[in-house]
This record gives sequence, C-alpha cells and structure tokens, in this order.
Amino acid sequence: MSKGNRAVVLLSGGIDSATTVAIAHNESLDIFALSFDYGQRHKIELECAGYIAEKFGAREHLIINFNLRDIGGSALTADLEVPKRSTETQKRGSGKGQDDTSDIQSIPITYVPARNTIFLSFALAWAETLEASEIFIGANIIDYSGYPDCRPEFLEAFQNMANLATKASVEGSIKFTIRAPLIKMTKSDIIKRGADLGVDYSLTWSCYDPQSRGNKVFPCLRCESCQLRAKGFLESGLVDPISLNL
Amino acid sequence: MSKGNRAVVLLSGGIDSATTVAIAHNESLDIFALSFDYGQRHKIELECAGYIAEKFGAREHLIINFNLRDIGGSALTADLEVPKRSTETQKRGSGKGQDDTSDIQSIPITYVPARNTIFLSFALAWAETLEASEIFIGANIIDYSGYPDCRPEFLEAFQNMANLATKASVEGSIKFTIRAPLIKMTKSDIIKRGADLGVDYSLTWSCYDPQSRGNKVFPCLRCESCQLRAKGFLESGLVDPISLNL
Repeated sequence: MSKGNRAVVLLSGGIDSATTVAIAHNESLDIFALSFDYGQRHKIELECAGYIAEKFGAREHLIINFNLRDIGGSALTADLEVPKRSTETQKRGSGKGQDDTSDIQSIPITYVPARNTIFLSFALAWAETLEASEIFIGANIIDYSGYPDCRPEFLEAFQNMANLATKASVEGSIKFTIRAPLIKMTKSDIIKRGADLGVDYSLTWSCYDPQSRGNKVFPCLRCESCQLRAKGFLESGLVDPISLNL
Repeated sequence: MSKGNRAVVLLSGGIDSATTVAIAHNESLDIFALSFDYGQRHKIELECAGYIAEKFGAREHLIINFNLRDIGGSALTADLEVPKRSTETQKRGSGKGQDDTSDIQSIPITYVPARNTIFLSFALAWAETLEASEIFIGANIIDYSGYPDCRPEFLEAFQNMANLATKASVEGSIKFTIRAPLIKMTKSDIIKRGADLGVDYSLTWSCYDPQSRGNKVFPCLRCESCQLRAKGFLESGLVDPISLNL
C-alpha cells in the first residue's frame, strides 16, 4: 500500500515550483522535495529551493547531482548565449505589460533536452522507494508553450509509462499520479495563488543569467524568465519582493 | 532530420549490453555508448563497458555520474545483502543446467527503482542532442521476467512518451525508436549471437557481488547474475572465458 499522504515534489526554486510546494502543503501532504544540480549556470536557484523546502516543512530535501553539460544542447547547460531582448524592447515590455510573447511560442534555446523526463524519472524512483503515489511538477503550458515536456499529453504519457515501469505499480501496491496543478494557470494567477498560500517570493529565483556585483547576485531582468516574472507580477497587482532589493 | 546512422546504446558492461553493441555495430550504425556510474557496488562493469565500446569502435563512450544510493531501495545501491543460492543449490544448478529459475520470477531485491526509466531518459537527452533516432537497450524478458522495466509494454510506453517529450520529435525532425533486440532471446541464444558477432566475453562482467583477492577481482559465482551467466554458457555449449581465470 502506498503511504497515502506522501508526495514527491520537484523543486527548482522558481516561482512555479515554490507555488507547487505550497499547493501540496495545503493538501496536507507529507512533502519530499527533489532538486537537481545538473550543471545549470545558476546555482542560486538551489539555495532558494532549500529555503522553500524548509519554509513548507518538507520531510526531506534531496538534491541529486549529475552533469547535463556532458550532453549539452541547451543554453542553460552548454556555453551558448542566453537570449535576451534588447534593453529597448525590455523597457517597452515591462513598462506596458504587453502581450508580446511571440519569442517564446517556438521552442527556445533554453530548452534542455529531455530535462523533465530525466527529472520525473528520478522522482519516480524516489517515490517508489518512499511509497509515495503522487509526484508534483510545476509544469505550465501557458507561459511555456514552447517546451514539449510541459504539455499535458507528455505528462499523461509519462504517467502511463511510470505505471508500467516500477515494481510497486506492477505489483499493484501503488498507482502513480503525476500532478501538475499549475498546468493551465497564467503566471499572474500562479503568483496570486502562491501569495494566498504564504509563498514568500523573495525566496524564489527565476533569472537564467544572474549578474554578480560584489558578493551579491542580481537577476538580469532581460532574459525570458525575468521577463515572464516581471509580467506576472505586473498583472497580479503584487510587488515582486526581489525588485525591492535592486 | 536525424543523422540516420547514429545510435545511442546503453552499455553496462554485461553480456546483454555487450551483445547489443555488437548487433548495432553489425547494422553499421555509428555507436554512441552510454554508461552510468550510479553508486552500484561493482565498478568493474564500467571498465568492461570501456573495453567493449573501444572494441566495437564507438564514436564516443559517455559515462554519466549520479548517486542512486541517495534514493536507495535496492540491494545494488543500498547496504542490503545480495541474495545468493546456497553452495549446494548452486552446485546442483550449474551441474545440471536445470530450469529452476523460480527465484527470479518474482521481482528480486536487486531491482533498482526506475533504473531503466532513468537510463533511457538520459539516452533520450543524448540522442536528441546527437540527432540519433535509435536507442538500444539490452533488456530481456526471458531471464529477467521479474523486472517490470525490461518488458516490451514498458519499452513501448517509454517510446511513446519519448516522442512527446522532445523538441526534435515534436517538431517532426526525429522519431525515436527504442530497440531491444534481445528482448525475447534466451541467455544461451544471446551468447551464441554475440560470439558470432565477435564479442569477447572475457571483457564482460556479470557478478553483482565481486570478490577481491589481492588486487584482482573475481565473480562470486553464487548471485543470481552469476547463475544466469553460468547457465547461459552451459546451454550455449561455449566456454565462459572468465571461468578460465578462476
């Protein structure tokens, strides 16, 4: 039998995964947070993941290390330049909160080959060991429509595969469910939901290309992820606590 | 477009994966061999994987490191005892080549949670980066009927998921195929096929519980994997070259 209140939650340290942890916590689930140090450029997100896990009383926070740089194929793990809007565009963008997201409708260079497949595979392994039947992922199709592994059809296919893959599911003791509670929410709705549930977004990190000044690190405000964050906060009517420190 | 002659081949260094490399080589595929250092007890299999990759002219041999000991749940990655037949049973088994495989019909303690799912996920990521459409795995349902992630229905579900997971497949440039050429072969047939294709089985390793004497390592001859190897060679009529060094 599964330990019915246990859930593995993928936690990157960004807005979406922090909100996902809060949603699992709000369902009184026993949270086992799972992060990855996979050669991404911005380790600060792992620190944020630790803060969020602690804040929501995760039973464990496991960080698995491997190096996707060996595989390459992405601006986030290879030495490719993270794409940015020009300062001019960015100013117009954040000033007007316009809907020009055309540059994230196709699959961006920040796509990491099979990343969510790899992350969910480790989550599945841990869930089986923990006898946890639920695996939460902050996947979202509204703002990340270009990422194939954020789509419901992918998540459904993964769930189907997962239930054929494991001893626990084949023997019938656990049926794994992949939960993606943010899948169709806008960034603005995600932020509002998280704020309601007590997420402190000053403990989250979004920027793909952090800038160092002295021994402090600041978001670039120009990459796709900073742009989405700014737009989300703008539309939510809430203030991004990170912006107060800039 | 995929680079049609490229294949990622999962290579553990055992009989099955060595034979799988030979089969891919025989199809004139350009081989990218993929191994994992995942905290297994027996690192000698990685040395064997290196020999096999070199012998069959792999273009690259990539070893990805991560630690499944963090997750546990298996005799191969946690501090659980590897099960063995008694010496008496083992003698009867290898002496008569009998079909008593009842102890491997249920899922054994050497099952590693979601291992093949994790391995195939990395293979998928690398295949996408390489523009390789074929992924080979030495999965086998005859001798490993207890392992859920060696079954055709699992491999089919993985392939279906893989083609929904990646930029290359969603954009239509690659359709990934999971190839498991050994899936319904007996160990004896696998050994005979590999021998025909030039596999030097002295370069392969099977034992789950290697024994050290001085600075040399020997198979225990009693674990499930040693037993299957002995039975396979016996039935093939070939001599296991490893046995000549004992």
